[in-house]
Amino acid sequence: MDKIIVQKYGGSSVANILRIQDAAQRVVAYKNKGYNVVVVVSALGDTTDELLDMAYKIAKEPPERELDMLMSTGEQVSSALLAMAINALGKESISFTGAQVGIMTDRSHTKARIINIDAKRIKEELNKGKVVIVAGFQGINPEQDITTLGRGGSDTTAVALAKVLKSSVCEIYTDVDGIYTADPRIVSDAKKIDKICYEEMLEMASLGAQVMQARSIELASKFHVPIHVRSSFSNKQGTIVTKEVRAMEDVLVSGVTINKNEAKITVCDVPDKPGYAARIFETLADADINVDMIIQNISRTGANATDVSFTVMKSDLQKTLKVAKKLCKEIEAGGTTYDDDIAKVSVVGIGMRSHSGVAGKMFKTLAEAGINIEMISTSEIKISCVVDKSSGEKAVKAIHKAFKLGKLKKGH
Amino acid sequence: MDKIIVQKYGGSSVANILRIQDAAQRVVAYKNKGYNVVVVVSALGDTTDELLDMAYKIAKEPPERELDMLMSTGEQVSSALLAMAINALGKESISFTGAQVGIMTDRSHTKARIINIDAKRIKEELNKGKVVIVAGFQGINPEQDITTLGRGGSDTTAVALAKVLKSSVCEIYTDVDGIYTADPRIVSDAKKIDKICYEEMLEMASLGAQVMQARSIELASKFHVPIHVRSSFSNKQGTIVTKEVRAMEDVLVSGVTINKNEAKITVCDVPDKPGYAARIFETLADADINVDMIIQNISRTGANATDVSFTVMKSDLQKTLKVAKKLCKEIEAGGTTYDDDIAKVSVVGIGMRSHSGVAGKMFKTLAEAGINIEMISTSEIKISCVVDKSSGEKAVKAIHKAFKLGKLKKGH
Repeated sequence: MDKIIVQKYGGSSVANILRIQDAAQRVVAYKNKGYNVVVVVSALGDTTDELLDMAYKIAKEPPERELDMLMSTGEQVSSALLAMAINALGKESISFTGAQVGIMTDRSHTKARIINIDAKRIKEELNKGKVVIVAGFQGINPEQDITTLGRGGSDTTAVALAKVLKSSVCEIYTDVDGIYTADPRIVSDAKKIDKICYEEMLEMASLGAQVMQARSIELASKFHVPIHVRSSFSNKQGTIVTKEVRAMEDVLVSGVTINKNEAKITVCDVPDKPGYAARIFETLADADINVDMIIQNISRTGANATDVSFTVMKSDLQKTLKVAKKLCKEIEAGGTTYDDDIAKVSVVGIGMRSHSGVAGKMFKTLAEAGINIEMISTSEIKISCVVDKSSGEKAVKAIHKAFKLGKLKKGH
Repeated sequence: MDKIIVQKYGGSSVANILRIQDAAQRVVAYKNKGYNVVVVVSALGDTTDELLDMAYKIAKEPPERELDMLMSTGEQVSSALLAMAINALGKESISFTGAQVGIMTDRSHTKARIINIDAKRIKEELNKGKVVIVAGFQGINPEQDITTLGRGGSDTTAVALAKVLKSSVCEIYTDVDGIYTADPRIVSDAKKIDKICYEEMLEMASLGAQVMQARSIELASKFHVPIHVRSSFSNKQGTIVTKEVRAMEDVLVSGVTINKNEAKITVCDVPDKPGYAARIFETLADADINVDMIIQNISRTGANATDVSFTVMKSDLQKTLKVAKKLCKEIEAGGTTYDDDIAKVSVVGIGMRSHSGVAGKMFKTLAEAGINIEMISTSEIKISCVVDKSSGEKAVKAIHKAFKLGKLKKGH
């Protein structure tokens, strides 16, 4: 069989009829180059949001199984339309739902995980010379109920198919032409990164770069699937996401990200007894609230109590406050305060592993820019600082400059 | 198990969120009465047309398999939304695609026929006390490809499920409150028919009453599934469609219908040789053109030639003329003429079987109204006349009056 390539087109790349026809042209060009092309598509533009909007008008808490039934139609529509557009260009093409190509998942609705893919049907159709289109974001569970893989799940579908089909590369088509050293809307001389490793990409994705679903990158990393993030509006080379190569360590910092979607909550005057902090986070976990950064301050009162601060997604803020207030009474803490006017600014780079001084340089840069740091959290390859929201973009610009990531400087 | 009832809600009955919530209320009312309710839904309002519109903008001749992939999403959306609305009212409900409830069809796309239904999953969910929603209009073929059952196919889904589940009745909810003796927009004193037999309903449906898909009535007739056509806007009794009962014969004529969607084509001066007429209609059949009425006139020239006239759906007119012109040359006929400004007016009633004189009365009524009859065709329980389109409604009114079908007269 010819070499297989998996291409994933995001919502903006199939937003309307013209965009679908553009995508079809691109697919046919690859087919003409001798590739066996498997295409994964997202739903047209804002379809998923429109469907969800209807659902929440009908029911305050629609059953998740039914949400999956509903949402999965978006990708089915775009798959069929893309297959039609490719056929109209004279190449045979056939579209499939997740269920039809055997994308088996676990039983959790709206955020299912892929367990297995039986690619038999895809291979059969490729052998007949057809371009195969697969509806992204969806699968089927052991009860034959439709499941979805969570926001951005089409990336995961694409990476999983690339792995199973032993595709040489998994191309992710989007509306930006790659991963940048910072958001070009904030930093005008932000530079496209030619090559980045999975770990860095993962930090970039979960920190707010929002080009690919984090889970899909984990999966690509696990199975060494090379990813090419590129624009569906041009033929320019984008960013290759691949396993770590030695040369990457020469670069101290790969990029600077900003995330304005978190809120900070402080539980004040928590009695300083063993197990009390654990209880806070266990309770939050039980309530299905994802906590990101955590810090524990020595209480200013000097008494046997301490302040515990953490950040959560803004969308979870109300739920979190409710849980935290209830908890405050139980553990006799002083009360809760919150701040949803924050920004988390992070530097990411595997170079940090072998270079010291990144944190110091970052803190110094922020101090020189007169920006106060409210919280700090670090991992092996990233350092995040929470600052006042109004200082967020200023912080990104200052750090980007301090680490010489701009276009005219020597970088990657 | 409790008594099972199958209800089908058409596009207008689930056209928007409020209508879906109304339908949910009705379903829950039946559930509270102790019924096991299985609901079949059409797509929301004009969804199917909107999807088709996109498809034909993308491709002149989209593959039928892909059209089915595309169109079947409409019913999946409305199923999920209705299930959510019922859940929001406190009754458990679960929605299914045709594939999920084992609606097996043959391989023909866009007009598949149901071969078998494995109702296992439906029964399981009913046994758990759930309201089961099934996406109408769709099934799955032996290759696991999605098929659709043709326009109005949700009626067929509903009747087939009513048969398999041994439902006491199949309720068809629509935007009219039953079958009328004539279109109430044309004849102001048209009367709702309380009871009608399958054969009459079939003639009414295929003659333009357009309340139910003809195939679904054939199916109901074959398996003696009682149908109740009624309005989703009221609780009034509608029209029961059932097998023939003796009392029905007392009624001479059940209704008068009009169909303005046909065109008449005449192939002139066809050489009067054996097999020439057959050749015309074989050629049309090969081109997949459905011919309705056929008449062969003695040629006015008196020569060894004859005129052959027939009617086809207006949407097939251009195709038909193309075929007919080619044929004219081959069989050395004189040429073709056409008239798409016609109306077919019909009277329907199983009473005709045992009463003579219906045809005579119809022709006399039209003559007295000064309306010229262009073509006549009859069956055991209907008589159709083609008249000038501008006289169509006048003809319906006159016939409705002549057969005393109006509200104030003694009728059904």
